[in-house]
Amino acid sequence: MMKRVFMDYQSGMPLDPLVFETMKPYFTEHFGNPLSLHYLSEPVKEALINAREKVAELINAETPEKEIIFTSGGTESINLAIKGVASRNKNEGNHIITSQIEHMATLNTCKSLMKEGFNITFLPVDKHGTVDIEALKEEITDKTILISIMYANNEIGTIEPIKEIVEIAEDKKIYFHTDAVAAAGKIPIDAQQEKIGLITLSSNDIYGPKGVGALYVNKRVKIAPIILGGGQERGLRSGTENIPGIVGFGKAAELAKKNMKEEGKQIEKLRDILIKNILEKIERSYLTGHPEKRLPNNASFRFDGIEGESIVLKLSQNGIVAATGSACASQTLEPSHVLRATGLNHVQAHGSLLLTLSKWNTEEDVNYLLENLPKTISTLREMSPVWQMIEQGVDLEEKMKEWMQGEEEHHHDEEEL
Amino acid sequence: MMKRVFMDYQSGMPLDPLVFETMKPYFTEHFGNPLSLHYLSEPVKEALINAREKVAELINAETPEKEIIFTSGGTESINLAIKGVASRNKNEGNHIITSQIEHMATLNTCKSLMKEGFNITFLPVDKHGTVDIEALKEEITDKTILISIMYANNEIGTIEPIKEIVEIAEDKKIYFHTDAVAAAGKIPIDAQQEKIGLITLSSNDIYGPKGVGALYVNKRVKIAPIILGGGQERGLRSGTENIPGIVGFGKAAELAKKNMKEEGKQIEKLRDILIKNILEKIERSYLTGHPEKRLPNNASFRFDGIEGESIVLKLSQNGIVAATGSACASQTLEPSHVLRATGLNHVQAHGSLLLTLSKWNTEEDVNYLLENLPKTISTLREMSPVWQMIEQGVDLEEKMKEWMQGEEEHHHDEEEL
Repeated sequence: MMKRVFMDYQSGMPLDPLVFETMKPYFTEHFGNPLSLHYLSEPVKEALINAREKVAELINAETPEKEIIFTSGGTESINLAIKGVASRNKNEGNHIITSQIEHMATLNTCKSLMKEGFNITFLPVDKHGTVDIEALKEEITDKTILISIMYANNEIGTIEPIKEIVEIAEDKKIYFHTDAVAAAGKIPIDAQQEKIGLITLSSNDIYGPKGVGALYVNKRVKIAPIILGGGQERGLRSGTENIPGIVGFGKAAELAKKNMKEEGKQIEKLRDILIKNILEKIERSYLTGHPEKRLPNNASFRFDGIEGESIVLKLSQNGIVAATGSACASQTLEPSHVLRATGLNHVQAHGSLLLTLSKWNTEEDVNYLLENLPKTISTLREMSPVWQMIEQGVDLEEKMKEWMQGEEEHHHDEEEL
Repeated sequence: MMKRVFMDYQSGMPLDPLVFETMKPYFTEHFGNPLSLHYLSEPVKEALINAREKVAELINAETPEKEIIFTSGGTESINLAIKGVASRNKNEGNHIITSQIEHMATLNTCKSLMKEGFNITFLPVDKHGTVDIEALKEEITDKTILISIMYANNEIGTIEPIKEIVEIAEDKKIYFHTDAVAAAGKIPIDAQQEKIGLITLSSNDIYGPKGVGALYVNKRVKIAPIILGGGQERGLRSGTENIPGIVGFGKAAELAKKNMKEEGKQIEKLRDILIKNILEKIERSYLTGHPEKRLPNNASFRFDGIEGESIVLKLSQNGIVAATGSACASQTLEPSHVLRATGLNHVQAHGSLLLTLSKWNTEEDVNYLLENLPKTISTLREMSPVWQMIEQGVDLEEKMKEWMQGEEEHHHDEEEL
């Protein structure tokens, strides 16, 4: 059997077996509704309280019962945070600031608000993907009601200067939301100490089940619900609670808090071996994202003269699971909007490879990747007309400008729906 | 050990073991993202297609890939149907017609649209909970863009005259949505033959996992999404797919289609024993909902002179799980809005008992309930001042008017958030 090596954990995680064991009784035995009056509701009520506490502890939220809203996942949480703040506080202003490298959930939610009269500022980032703090300061107006910046980027791993952003938001009394889907469970997040207003969390990104997430809403922050009904989650997210999912998320949060530091060190070590060796062994290879301020599990690159899609397909034939751009971006044929925002042109951005590690990766995995990748890149480059031009010393910058002009004509409208 | 009898399946269902077995590999082994380019995506892509087909088959939808949108559950589907039609078609009109006995998801979503300039008509029902067709005809205006009526009621089991409603909607070219959460898998629903525009489905109500549902949207019906992001579900419901949940829902739909008829007969037989015996054995007991046009699993009653809450708590002490009103209604201390709409006053509506059966109920269960319930009712009535008044021949109608006046003053604003 072919060796199988998984380095695309950002796109999907298997459940931690301990999490699965914790969930199981809630599928079959404890199937009650927490709102019922009879004895079947007791174990589920308790489980709900317990899970809420564990999720709160992961980000050091002060009052679980008032500040954690369970949702169906990161995307819903982001929608709830942004639309929830916007619709509840629209009398205070109609301006929202976010960045160009946010998840599509943030970008598309913000774009949809433009149709309702909101103005959105999409802040630029530098070549490492760090949000431009000076631009943030300049863009704030007295109509600004929300700043939404991700804690760390899911594609290039860059950790954003949250502390500085919060200071600015606090100073101007503007709500701050952070999409912490990629960061939570990987690096410490402290809602109280960091004074963050809203935090989006996803269960599957911390070895929990898919289909469940949470939004932390500091008790001083006012939002409106987007899904209405029976009034669950203090009226902020109706719908019968997905108890097995929530229980699993709670257990995953508990394990993440307990093991983050140790596991992080181990994963970071593997990441550093990957980065060092890939940059050394493969000519014209580049790290994307920040060289130091990056998530411990993220090793992202680009390679001149080839397409990321081809790299991923070729690696897949050898049992290696990897990504190019984010899974969400692969809906379209567009190159990653994140890489584009860091200043790369279409052709450069198309040559990306994203390796995301988990606690299950080993040195053996890393060695297998390091054996395979250089060969894969060479093989693909041999077939690549672009690479041949590079070798022949053609002025690619000039060539690319020509191509891009052609491409831009096809891609001027990136808006979804 | 005390005997345990479950007759509150409307509030929560255990997973069918066959469904759970089908889901398991998708938690741990097939954990890929359908959007990925590598081999891990293949089994999940296939699973997604297969589940979509099975859910489509349950309601005889023509084109699964274009008409089934997976969501996080019934509540989200209802929100998507109503807000999705409203926001996409607001240029056509701003009037929506629904009924007074809908699920809170429908009622509260409609109420929230009133803040955005929509007019909502809440149609009355008769004493059996059947929607008033003549009122429907009269209320339609040239601004009416949507009629949303449940297929069958979750509390009193009444099956609504969907065929007649669709004819009226078709004739006036108005979209029709039906909340089929309580009906699907219990009675046949045929999207094509019945010409229904939108159908809300929930997985847990057909022995599938919680946290997953679907909205059927006929391909001629235009809606807008409420959760934006990576563009999953053809852009109508973004967010990484909850693959284990969707797989489970698919299996549950397959089983429901296959076994509905046979299981329905068995459940209906038990229901009829319950209804016959309870009405015979307990004085001043009344069936709520329609005597014939009702779901096979629903046996709902009211009893003079006592509170439903006390009945449920007392039964729970004897191992019997039952409900009063719906689980969602128990968030508040309000009596069931459904029973109120059928013409019962506050005091009458408070004395309700809802028994909902599943394929796992047996004659033994029914006998146990029939042994316990009359004793429970007697005991409670002995302690009830209202019952004593009834026995003393006090004119309760008059008395209730006095009480209600007091109560109404406290309850004139039922709107949620």
